[in-house]
Amino acid sequence: MTDDLPRRAAATAGPVRIVGTGLLGASLGLALRSLGVEVRLADTSPVSLALARDLGAGDIAAGSSAVGGGPPTDEPGSREPATPAIVVVATPPDVAAEVVLRELAHHPGAVVTDVASVKDVVARDILLGAGEAAPRYVGSHPMAGRERSGATGADADLFAGRPWVVVPTERSSADAVRTVRALAQDVGSFAVDMAAAEHDRAVAVVSHLPQVLSSLLAARLNHADEAALGLAGQGLRDTTRIAAADPRLWSAILTGNAAALAAELRSVRDSLDEVLGALDLGVADPLAAGAVRPLADAIRGGNEGAARIPGKHGGAPRRYAEVTVLVPDAPGQLGRLFSEVGDAGVSIEDLGIEHSAGQRVGLVRLSVVPSAAADLEIELDRRGWRVVAS
Amino acid sequence: MTDDLPRRAAATAGPVRIVGTGLLGASLGLALRSLGVEVRLADTSPVSLALARDLGAGDIAAGSSAVGGGPPTDEPGSREPATPAIVVVATPPDVAAEVVLRELAHHPGAVVTDVASVKDVVARDILLGAGEAAPRYVGSHPMAGRERSGATGADADLFAGRPWVVVPTERSSADAVRTVRALAQDVGSFAVDMAAAEHDRAVAVVSHLPQVLSSLLAARLNHADEAALGLAGQGLRDTTRIAAADPRLWSAILTGNAAALAAELRSVRDSLDEVLGALDLGVADPLAAGAVRPLADAIRGGNEGAARIPGKHGGAPRRYAEVTVLVPDAPGQLGRLFSEVGDAGVSIEDLGIEHSAGQRVGLVRLSVVPSAAADLEIELDRRGWRVVAS
Repeated sequence: MTDDLPRRAAATAGPVRIVGTGLLGASLGLALRSLGVEVRLADTSPVSLALARDLGAGDIAAGSSAVGGGPPTDEPGSREPATPAIVVVATPPDVAAEVVLRELAHHPGAVVTDVASVKDVVARDILLGAGEAAPRYVGSHPMAGRERSGATGADADLFAGRPWVVVPTERSSADAVRTVRALAQDVGSFAVDMAAAEHDRAVAVVSHLPQVLSSLLAARLNHADEAALGLAGQGLRDTTRIAAADPRLWSAILTGNAAALAAELRSVRDSLDEVLGALDLGVADPLAAGAVRPLADAIRGGNEGAARIPGKHGGAPRRYAEVTVLVPDAPGQLGRLFSEVGDAGVSIEDLGIEHSAGQRVGLVRLSVVPSAAADLEIELDRRGWRVVAS
Repeated sequence: MTDDLPRRAAATAGPVRIVGTGLLGASLGLALRSLGVEVRLADTSPVSLALARDLGAGDIAAGSSAVGGGPPTDEPGSREPATPAIVVVATPPDVAAEVVLRELAHHPGAVVTDVASVKDVVARDILLGAGEAAPRYVGSHPMAGRERSGATGADADLFAGRPWVVVPTERSSADAVRTVRALAQDVGSFAVDMAAAEHDRAVAVVSHLPQVLSSLLAARLNHADEAALGLAGQGLRDTTRIAAADPRLWSAILTGNAAALAAELRSVRDSLDEVLGALDLGVADPLAAGAVRPLADAIRGGNEGAARIPGKHGGAPRRYAEVTVLVPDAPGQLGRLFSEVGDAGVSIEDLGIEHSAGQRVGLVRLSVVPSAAADLEIELDRRGWRVVAS
């Protein structure tokens, strides 16, 4: 298995100092350690720090409990101080700039980056205070995460296959940018260069707006009764999955991207008002002039927008054929299904499982290349599966 | 396989007349035919009708091309007229009432139901016109569907495991209600009784509101550039999946539930305005009084609401442990994974696959009972899979 995913030799020369040992910091430590890169960890919380070390994310940096602060001291149990080549600041966004500035000051030979999910406000504060150190700072945003936060969810493969946005300031040196790009590639990400404002506008629409709308939608469920919730299907589950987000972290992210997000939200509110206007007309008379067109336009606009989301592997959205199979909810049935699909020589491009309250069966949707679909349906049917006709 | 899903003998006595041979009508025909129930199909479109018949959804009803209209005639190729025991009206919601009234008039011995996804406006029009026939009408809403519409997506198992809302009016007879409940259970649904207004409020929040918000979110992507779209992750994909909805059908649904949906949308708009107010404060000063609290409240409200969605099998949300595996995108790899999970004797309760633009690997998330997770991780690791630590 691992042969299929060869690891490159690391281009990154350590030691790498990681400040903040939550999910991203600890995962980065694990990824770098697996490449043999020396990692020194720091965190304001001694417990988080010890946990990350115990997980194998790196050694505890000397003087580490004072984040980025003070000259290195000889604490018992900590390694001898070593000059980091790179410092990665993996704190929440609201303290990132302050920590980056301290790290620039204390490690005058190091390239410093942060992984906060907002970049403009962070970079501006850094440029205000960095002075001559500014060329050594480059922003980062690895587009990786999980609904769970903290080092316990850490994973050396967290960054694999994900975009890592590299955000140089106008003062970043070319060397510093190359160093951060190499770091991203070492941990399996692909580096994408963007300016801070461009990044913030992009994540406002692809990440922060979906978060706010999903949260507001899910919050409405607090006012629904059990009977209504019993009718919930896959559509509601999909649209509210990300509503299980961390309020503390997300408050900092949203307020850190306030301007770009407000612009998106304002547009949505305007469209929502058009829909509301149509509905209000429709309450009085469903065929009133202007009662239907805004509704159809809203749905059609959504059709077009959703079709713009890139498909797998960064290509244009591809049309796959869908083969749907009704699977009894018993151990080994999914295994048998996928194994038999494999036997048929068909590659599954995407998949999903749907289930409904009250019944012990699931609908498994397999996306396959269109040319393979008909034969696969016949083959699965032959093997006794209940294939849903398409 | 089929042994695991025994079919009951049908409680429904035919013939069942189905008016409208789109996805729901044709699927119902297939399901009833598979139970040996006699099915007669009618549709305003002769081509749709012939297609549904060719798919095996039933025979063409005499006089079928005039939907519900006119006395039965002896058309060539159509069967002898037979008195239906049940008529199911499976037209779009905006014509459902009119067709139900005609069917009540033309089939004086039949129980008539419709499957429109809005119920109050339909039932009101029917009660206005039904007169003495009113006891024979009962509304229905099978909570089943697909993003694809039309008979080509029809499937005898479409209703399996789904709630089928049975909506009696104040004039529905107990016999008629029992007949419709039995029909629902025959095709594998579980019947849920609700009053029309209660149903409409329920679907406003669990179905129509998610649809509008997903569509408005997706529509914003029409204003995003390629670089921004390249950062899209699973969160955006999940929240916009249902945006691929049919504008014609959904305009009729939304306008048919205008009052209940408007109330939901207005609440969301008010919450959205609170978030916007906080963001506007935050643009000037991220630590301004009132700039953060509404953001944290919105995320926390979403946490609580999402946790109220019932889990699988109609129970309370269950906590599953998640085992995440990095899978190379090669034919047979998913099959191997699921087959090996089956070998380990572990039942997969839910699953998802995540992929990111630009890289040929996928992250497969397996939900399993917590007691099985640790052993499964060890076993998969032993077999060479790259298991993401949790």
